[in-house]
Amino acid sequence: MDALETRSAIVRRAADIASVEGLEGLTIGRLASELGMSKSGVVGQFGSKEELQLATLGYAADVFREQVWEPARHLEPGLPRLLGVCDAWTRYADSDCFTGGCFIAAAQFEWDGRDGRVRDALAEFTGLWRSALVADIEAAIAAGDLPAATDPAQVAYSLEALAAGMNPARQLHGDTNAAAWTLQAMRAVLRLPA
Amino acid sequence: MDALETRSAIVRRAADIASVEGLEGLTIGRLASELGMSKSGVVGQFGSKEELQLATLGYAADVFREQVWEPARHLEPGLPRLLGVCDAWTRYADSDCFTGGCFIAAAQFEWDGRDGRVRDALAEFTGLWRSALVADIEAAIAAGDLPAATDPAQVAYSLEALAAGMNPARQLHGDTNAAAWTLQAMRAVLRLPA
Repeated sequence: MDALETRSAIVRRAADIASVEGLEGLTIGRLASELGMSKSGVVGQFGSKEELQLATLGYAADVFREQVWEPARHLEPGLPRLLGVCDAWTRYADSDCFTGGCFIAAAQFEWDGRDGRVRDALAEFTGLWRSALVADIEAAIAAGDLPAATDPAQVAYSLEALAAGMNPARQLHGDTNAAAWTLQAMRAVLRLPA
Repeated sequence: MDALETRSAIVRRAADIASVEGLEGLTIGRLASELGMSKSGVVGQFGSKEELQLATLGYAADVFREQVWEPARHLEPGLPRLLGVCDAWTRYADSDCFTGGCFIAAAQFEWDGRDGRVRDALAEFTGLWRSALVADIEAAIAAGDLPAATDPAQVAYSLEALAAGMNPARQLHGDTNAAAWTLQAMRAVLRLPA
């Protein structure tokens, strides 16, 4: 493996571990032993645990974009694209992309009360995601596809909360219907017929 | 302080720290230094880190019951009590009961992918909570206050996801409207007028 492949293998494994045990629980020692590398070989790629955490978050954000935004982005801006996003989002959160469910959702609950660069990077990424949702909600209101009284920020926040809820539903309660339940609830917060 | 007071002081402080940094991040050393106790004084009360985690979760579950269920339990079973619960739930999640927001929500996202007694205790408590929600939703359907086509498990799950979403909304995004947004979304998943 060349250096780039090594880096990418470390980050993929790190994201998978962190989706279950958290980004803070990630240890260089465990990663090294799971990947059959030396600790210095892992550290050498990143320099510090925080850099490894940031790289892991960056990788997870790429997966999120690829799985949730890519399948929907070609759709018409407004309600069609918003519903496409909801569909892709729940399919992704119901998939085995990461062992512990949606990495971004898990990281938000882990880092929301902390300080530092990882938290800031997470707030930036999820803030951009919320802006994308708000843009489509505003377009849907302008097109008359959602009621004029719709509050875009309230709806975007509600969609985020519902998508995140799939992690504990699937893993803690074994809710095999979580994706379908979430789509139903997303339609309800959009005040669309069931 | 007698032994009971000591135990209770440890558990209160532990719950507050864990609401920010997670139950797994809780260390005996940090607790001891924050409380001005010896490490053996802290360990002696519980015997192991896992027992301390279980006691902390038990305390947080008591706070949840006291803040979310107590203010609503005297209301009429069905829609009146369900709306009372939603109201108390969002007020509690918007309060400073714990530094890191709702402890139960944070713990669910931390433990959903793990194994062991802490996870099992959390699944049991949140399972009981869901049963209480389902009972009021079923009573509301029977009374004709919710549509006959309402799926109680789907609605209960959606209320849980929305309440939990207040943690990252308030802390990661500084959403000062999170409680009002959540109540609006809860009414929407119940298919009640805004």
